[in-house]
Amino acid sequence: MNVEIINTGSELMLGRVLNTHHQWLSRRLADLGHMVTRQVAVADTGRDIQEAVRESLGRADLIITTGGLGPTSDDITRELIAELLGRKLVQNRDVLAHIDQFFAKRNRARPAMTNVETMVPEGALVFLNPTGTAPGLAVETGQKPGHKQWLVMLPGPPRELRPMFDELVIPLLKQTFAAELFVCRTLRTTGIGESRVQEMIEAGLQPLVVRGLGIGYCARPGAVDVRLTASGTVAPQLVREGEAVVQSIMGPNIYGFDDDEMESVVVRQLMEKKKTVALAESCTGGHIANRITNIPGASVVLLGGVVSYANAAKENLLGVRAETLRQHGAVSEPVAREMVLGVRERFGSDYALAVTGIAGPGGGTPEKPVGTVFIALAWSGGVEVECLLNPWDRVTFKDVTATQALERLRRRLA
Amino acid sequence: MNVEIINTGSELMLGRVLNTHHQWLSRRLADLGHMVTRQVAVADTGRDIQEAVRESLGRADLIITTGGLGPTSDDITRELIAELLGRKLVQNRDVLAHIDQFFAKRNRARPAMTNVETMVPEGALVFLNPTGTAPGLAVETGQKPGHKQWLVMLPGPPRELRPMFDELVIPLLKQTFAAELFVCRTLRTTGIGESRVQEMIEAGLQPLVVRGLGIGYCARPGAVDVRLTASGTVAPQLVREGEAVVQSIMGPNIYGFDDDEMESVVVRQLMEKKKTVALAESCTGGHIANRITNIPGASVVLLGGVVSYANAAKENLLGVRAETLRQHGAVSEPVAREMVLGVRERFGSDYALAVTGIAGPGGGTPEKPVGTVFIALAWSGGVEVECLLNPWDRVTFKDVTATQALERLRRRLA
Repeated sequence: MNVEIINTGSELMLGRVLNTHHQWLSRRLADLGHMVTRQVAVADTGRDIQEAVRESLGRADLIITTGGLGPTSDDITRELIAELLGRKLVQNRDVLAHIDQFFAKRNRARPAMTNVETMVPEGALVFLNPTGTAPGLAVETGQKPGHKQWLVMLPGPPRELRPMFDELVIPLLKQTFAAELFVCRTLRTTGIGESRVQEMIEAGLQPLVVRGLGIGYCARPGAVDVRLTASGTVAPQLVREGEAVVQSIMGPNIYGFDDDEMESVVVRQLMEKKKTVALAESCTGGHIANRITNIPGASVVLLGGVVSYANAAKENLLGVRAETLRQHGAVSEPVAREMVLGVRERFGSDYALAVTGIAGPGGGTPEKPVGTVFIALAWSGGVEVECLLNPWDRVTFKDVTATQALERLRRRLA
Repeated sequence: MNVEIINTGSELMLGRVLNTHHQWLSRRLADLGHMVTRQVAVADTGRDIQEAVRESLGRADLIITTGGLGPTSDDITRELIAELLGRKLVQNRDVLAHIDQFFAKRNRARPAMTNVETMVPEGALVFLNPTGTAPGLAVETGQKPGHKQWLVMLPGPPRELRPMFDELVIPLLKQTFAAELFVCRTLRTTGIGESRVQEMIEAGLQPLVVRGLGIGYCARPGAVDVRLTASGTVAPQLVREGEAVVQSIMGPNIYGFDDDEMESVVVRQLMEKKKTVALAESCTGGHIANRITNIPGASVVLLGGVVSYANAAKENLLGVRAETLRQHGAVSEPVAREMVLGVRERFGSDYALAVTGIAGPGGGTPEKPVGTVFIALAWSGGVEVECLLNPWDRVTFKDVTATQALERLRRRLA
């Protein structure tokens, strides 16, 4: 089965808005066993919309459009698609009553411009909008000989599209299309580059690839995702076997699965062990604390942190000695060590992380180029300090360094 | 001129990754005067990629593909497009030297599998990758009779694609394609909701809309962008007049323009005035420090901060009195006041910001529901504390609160 998604919106073509519909709908559809084969976005012009829909009608079994169903002048999808399918638009009484009620609840009269929202292509299924006025519409096109083909039109705003899809479209899909069993498992790794990851695991996975296992790689700064996929009744078994192979080869470098983030894994570990952590951040400037505090429940395990950008802050708030700073410089092994010991003592935490480095673009020297960073971890059993080189742009440097620091804590807690 | 962008990546079809390339590239191209007419994403399969590229070759003057140029087995774009265009792949010595050098810098031998990255379609322009190994490629296709047509292939990782586009692709586009004059100006506002912003400015802009000015709104949590656009020779004048109208009505709520972020504006203000700031963050958990330290040069103006999640940290590191915490609770006006005074004194900064609140999902009470936050600003002239309610999810709460805190500093510095 082929699924294609068409978004309409001139603001997308101007790059002023980030399109999240493609990801959201594709993820939902994959979870239902339907793989999206093409995602398209075009401007709100008649020619572009009709051309995109006509092409998809020639290829796909299910076409989902988003946007262009509202009451304003640039909302033209409904009319264009009715024309393309040769269907008349007729007023739907349920929609009229629903929109009347929507405005009555808000003590307002229904604006006349919403009339257009009550018009639906003849024979269409109507999805009354749980959180707005414009209904969703689904038409069995009858244009693909010997195949069922449906065209589903959904409103553009995410807060309308998402509940409508979950509550009304999913039941339609379940009763209309037989889902193929599809399994996707993502193993999230860190510490090894993309090419090396592939070299390490490809031979071991080859027998499973022959049997239908798909392997995908997604490299992000400081991390590589390995994605194992399979379809059909053998899918769970194939993916399980593939996961065992990758585990046996890359075990210590796998920090999580599917939607895990490094910080959510570390917070979970700390909660399970009832341990706490404190942070001393120089070059990461609060990014580690920020990532940890994005996770609900972080307040139980994170006692706090110090962003010690200035040397005076390293001395006054962390107890780093002026002598150490003078002798070795702020970006050095001894300073990282004193920072991590100082922050662990001041917060009274079980674990502590400290980072000091050169994020750039300025501040590098021949001995300590931009990207140099010292990462220190302290716990009841001792201190470890490592020097790494992350020669990326400033924001990527901060993110990679944060991931590396959290990874050291994750391994110590594992 | 028609521009089409084709992203490849099975992870996009699975909805596992949010596609930011379409927005980023469309925005850059619009700023150059080239409007993108279609955005497409397909899986990493030969048939899907070739079909999408073949269709675009039949319509567009400029086709940009992203992804599929790396060294792993699912990187097949280079080969497929060479085949489609009937070009042989030949090894490029500059690319080979560049990749050798890339690994030498990292004290590693070049992996054999990067060989494939050195192969380029005959006659292609090569963009050496400023931040990675796989080069970008540009081919004049010669397939559109009477028209110049270029196909540009860029690597998938944003940190490789973006500098390559800015440094190497833009000069090619400027010398190859005549741009239509297109002006877009974004006024970034905060503190007023989207409908109210529209009500405030729409009447005043109406005469300019009649003459061709486009208005767009983009609401983000805690901020609304007003986008003014126009095409043709009248564009600069129309947009300038529109900007003056919005300025006269919304002046104090406009914190920046175009790509300004609140934190970049504040860092610029502090640098200009040669002033410093320190931060005491409870519920924002380092997010304010993180945003400020994303800006190059932040180390000159940010002395540092304390992430005081635990009450003990508020006492020990900021000097908040135990009595104040007991009497008023950690989320209170008096605690915010003592936090901001404490952090300003300890860091010896000119300005200080402090926030304490309830990010949720847990921790709310009837008197202090989830979303309650106190924001304090201290400077040589005094202290201001404000109580606000930001009833969003945890991550949005942190971001909106950070924006509000920085806005208070921006206005004080203005």
